[in-house]
Amino acid sequence: MTIRPTPMPAARAAEDDTSGGRRGRGRRSRKAGLVQPAWSRIENPLKPVEIFSEDQIEAIHETAMRVVEELGIELMSAPARALFRAAGAEVDEASGTVRLDRALLLELVARAPRRFSLTPRNPARALEIGGRSMVSTLVAGPPAVHDCIRGRRPSNLPDYRNFIRLAHELNAIHMLGNQVAAPIELPAETRHLDCYDANIRLTDKSFHCTAIGPQRARDGIAMMAIAKGMTLEEMAAEPAVSTIISVNSPRRFDDAMADGLIEMARHGQATAITPFTLMGAMTPVTLPAALAQQTAEALFGIALTQLARPGAPVMYGAFTSNVDMRTGAPAFGTPENAKANIASGQLARRYGLPYRATPSNASNAADAQAVWETQMSLWGCVMGGANMLYHGAGWLEGGLCASFEKVMLDAEMLNHIYAFLAPTEVDDDTLGFAALARVPTGGHFFGDAHTLARYETAFFTPMLADWRNHETWVADGAKTATERATAAWQQALADYAEPALPEDRSEALAAYVATRREEIARDGI
Amino acid sequence: MTIRPTPMPAARAAEDDTSGGRRGRGRRSRKAGLVQPAWSRIENPLKPVEIFSEDQIEAIHETAMRVVEELGIELMSAPARALFRAAGAEVDEASGTVRLDRALLLELVARAPRRFSLTPRNPARALEIGGRSMVSTLVAGPPAVHDCIRGRRPSNLPDYRNFIRLAHELNAIHMLGNQVAAPIELPAETRHLDCYDANIRLTDKSFHCTAIGPQRARDGIAMMAIAKGMTLEEMAAEPAVSTIISVNSPRRFDDAMADGLIEMARHGQATAITPFTLMGAMTPVTLPAALAQQTAEALFGIALTQLARPGAPVMYGAFTSNVDMRTGAPAFGTPENAKANIASGQLARRYGLPYRATPSNASNAADAQAVWETQMSLWGCVMGGANMLYHGAGWLEGGLCASFEKVMLDAEMLNHIYAFLAPTEVDDDTLGFAALARVPTGGHFFGDAHTLARYETAFFTPMLADWRNHETWVADGAKTATERATAAWQQALADYAEPALPEDRSEALAAYVATRREEIARDGI
Repeated sequence: MTIRPTPMPAARAAEDDTSGGRRGRGRRSRKAGLVQPAWSRIENPLKPVEIFSEDQIEAIHETAMRVVEELGIELMSAPARALFRAAGAEVDEASGTVRLDRALLLELVARAPRRFSLTPRNPARALEIGGRSMVSTLVAGPPAVHDCIRGRRPSNLPDYRNFIRLAHELNAIHMLGNQVAAPIELPAETRHLDCYDANIRLTDKSFHCTAIGPQRARDGIAMMAIAKGMTLEEMAAEPAVSTIISVNSPRRFDDAMADGLIEMARHGQATAITPFTLMGAMTPVTLPAALAQQTAEALFGIALTQLARPGAPVMYGAFTSNVDMRTGAPAFGTPENAKANIASGQLARRYGLPYRATPSNASNAADAQAVWETQMSLWGCVMGGANMLYHGAGWLEGGLCASFEKVMLDAEMLNHIYAFLAPTEVDDDTLGFAALARVPTGGHFFGDAHTLARYETAFFTPMLADWRNHETWVADGAKTATERATAAWQQALADYAEPALPEDRSEALAAYVATRREEIARDGI
Repeated sequence: MTIRPTPMPAARAAEDDTSGGRRGRGRRSRKAGLVQPAWSRIENPLKPVEIFSEDQIEAIHETAMRVVEELGIELMSAPARALFRAAGAEVDEASGTVRLDRALLLELVARAPRRFSLTPRNPARALEIGGRSMVSTLVAGPPAVHDCIRGRRPSNLPDYRNFIRLAHELNAIHMLGNQVAAPIELPAETRHLDCYDANIRLTDKSFHCTAIGPQRARDGIAMMAIAKGMTLEEMAAEPAVSTIISVNSPRRFDDAMADGLIEMARHGQATAITPFTLMGAMTPVTLPAALAQQTAEALFGIALTQLARPGAPVMYGAFTSNVDMRTGAPAFGTPENAKANIASGQLARRYGLPYRATPSNASNAADAQAVWETQMSLWGCVMGGANMLYHGAGWLEGGLCASFEKVMLDAEMLNHIYAFLAPTEVDDDTLGFAALARVPTGGHFFGDAHTLARYETAFFTPMLADWRNHETWVADGAKTATERATAAWQQALADYAEPALPEDRSEALAAYVATRREEIARDGI
């Protein structure tokens, strides 16, 4: 138990300060109360696990190719269809169906880079996406938020801002996802501006743009460019933001998403094309068919990014779980979901693409189920060699609720995984024969020089785990890990210090938002 | 949520019936209330994950060999030392230290079988140990028990018997471990007889003998032979029971354990030689050194089994975790523990031995921490290719408490793992191109013939997970997974039906126990 015994009062956590970038600065020298591993680049050194043979992967690939060639994908955006038509695809304007042969599809996919970087306003927070790198994001999208003090409520801006502060404070989280909890009390047309503003001012980590339509994507790109002090052209050469492009599976891209995709790609910013599918509902009930459909849809979207801008950074996104066949309810962290996470990695590597995956769960509480389902899917991601763990922290209720406690539990679990992935040196020093020879049979190594020299760094130090004996734990209130997580997110918010943003950029950002609010009020867009 | 809404009253669960083998039979036709996967043989099809290169494993091996050759192992049993002396080892009788060169050690280890079977009184419960097989046991050894109704208490026979009933009822558990919760209210000299009697009458699964001294081991062997209707010689050719041989690390085998080991091996029954070590305490603080020591100790014990009886079934046992270096408290399910579980599999395979490992945790409650730590170590076991998950269900408080709720949570997690390990067929049927072609873009597969034909068996059905939406979950009492586990163990005990034991064997068993009680009262052994 590494949390200091003086957590902030709950009221402080609920408070939201919107006065700008100064308040927190004075606190920066304050020693943080929450003990956590340092920010670091995570590499997964493990050879990815394979649940399908090469032949089986080729059979899934073959079916995916037939889907694109024979069945086609419905593309509801006319500008997007025009790009495909110009490239030689067969386009049926009446139905919006695009069919293209595998040679063209794979030639376009091959234009995508094998890896890329995301460099936000603080270059120290730059991320590598691809290869063996692994990054984690905050949960994205829930319409509700929950903490164990104030209970469940509709998502809102003050909670949004506190989640961003937590994401900034926790080194386990490398970047934000899309809106962590949509501030639904704000007008839908300008909500994205409030979110981008918070994303930029409250953290210096990378964030996701909301690519529902080109203008929302463009606002995010433009605001990040201001924060970086760059032109859009300069930022195209140094990508900073990304987005998730969802698919209306089966086999349909709506116009807002397709246009958002094109906007992101044209500006050289990153996309993850992610068919979110539940087997038995949006795909056939069998995993190979689901993977074939997922691959067809993902590669089609990836091809579109390369038509918009050859070499645009893009990821193979995968989020295939299943429904409860008795009720139709969505299920996450299932054995089938874990398998899909591993197999999707095999497919992403088949095409030489960075791979986005998701740890998730269907639990209604930050409890044992939330953890075992998260772990099932998380290990699927890790064994599958995922490069981005989207929704990495805070996901509850199958994605319908962002949980403050779950953010802390997930950060703890991610820290465990990162420490697990750190390589262990084998040399004379770590083989420790001299120490083995020094300690007598039945003795102990506590006081040995080999132990004392490595005392402080030998092992991972957890943030929430309580390893005290039962009596001591009871005497201290017998708190469960979830109760300790409540104290921990309050401590993290107390520790939080807002990262400085240069005055001129801060003003330019405010001016951009003001102008856009006027435009949207006037033009609706 | 698959538990029937009529759980048994708590009082029923607490009740313990010691009247023998008949009471439950009438219930057998009753439909069970707890939905769970069928009993089945579990195979791990994954290529084991490797965290060390072949060179690194050889360096650990080399250090292990130097430990046995240069430092030696203290063997406190004179008969055991005599076996080594006769085989040509260097034995120092004054200190009890045995040194042997690697040629002799490895020649002895090579006599051990790569795999073996355990066939209890019900041949349908026979287990394969080795190769790709994976079996799980109940937790073993805690001095305390806990459930969320009656709280924490010293372990005792009525609770012991209920744990055995749970282990019988739950298909996720393949065999018992050593005493699940020592009935400490009973005389220490005869306690093992009461446990064996419960093990045999309340379940037809395999169990572990308590190998503290040869006579306790022999009692377990003899009682299982009676239950199987076999002579000891016949059972030597068809092993039925096993045991864990602990090591007083570093580098010491006490006399009771060594003599128990010899007794088990001479009767052709299985042992797992398991140095239980916490890095920084019983081994050096570095993982390679800990693995070298573990390997030296395990191979030394394995060599002893082969001196006692060439070809005796034996396992490479591994249980290396670490201490909290700030407090000295034991920690489990740490990143280091997960690494050790994987690396130990590499070492076991290096010597061609079946591999026993352990999922564990240090939590004081069946909460989120209990689950994430269990999952960390469990995935280490799975990725490491473990053949036996010892302490697979019920472990809490770093092994000091057997928890009824944790038994259910663990059974659920094991079932998830088993379903994950079941291979997925890839063929025209599962690739489902016809189904993909039938469902229109943006449609759904719920009503498609391909879905309906696979409706009932497509996906894993959990025992405890609640996938209902938030409103329904709240309306039904907003129970956490741990609370549902309380209902589930009560339901499992309500479902329980005692497996029939032929009358003559039942009587012979009772006679054996009565005789041994008299002998122990008279002779003390």
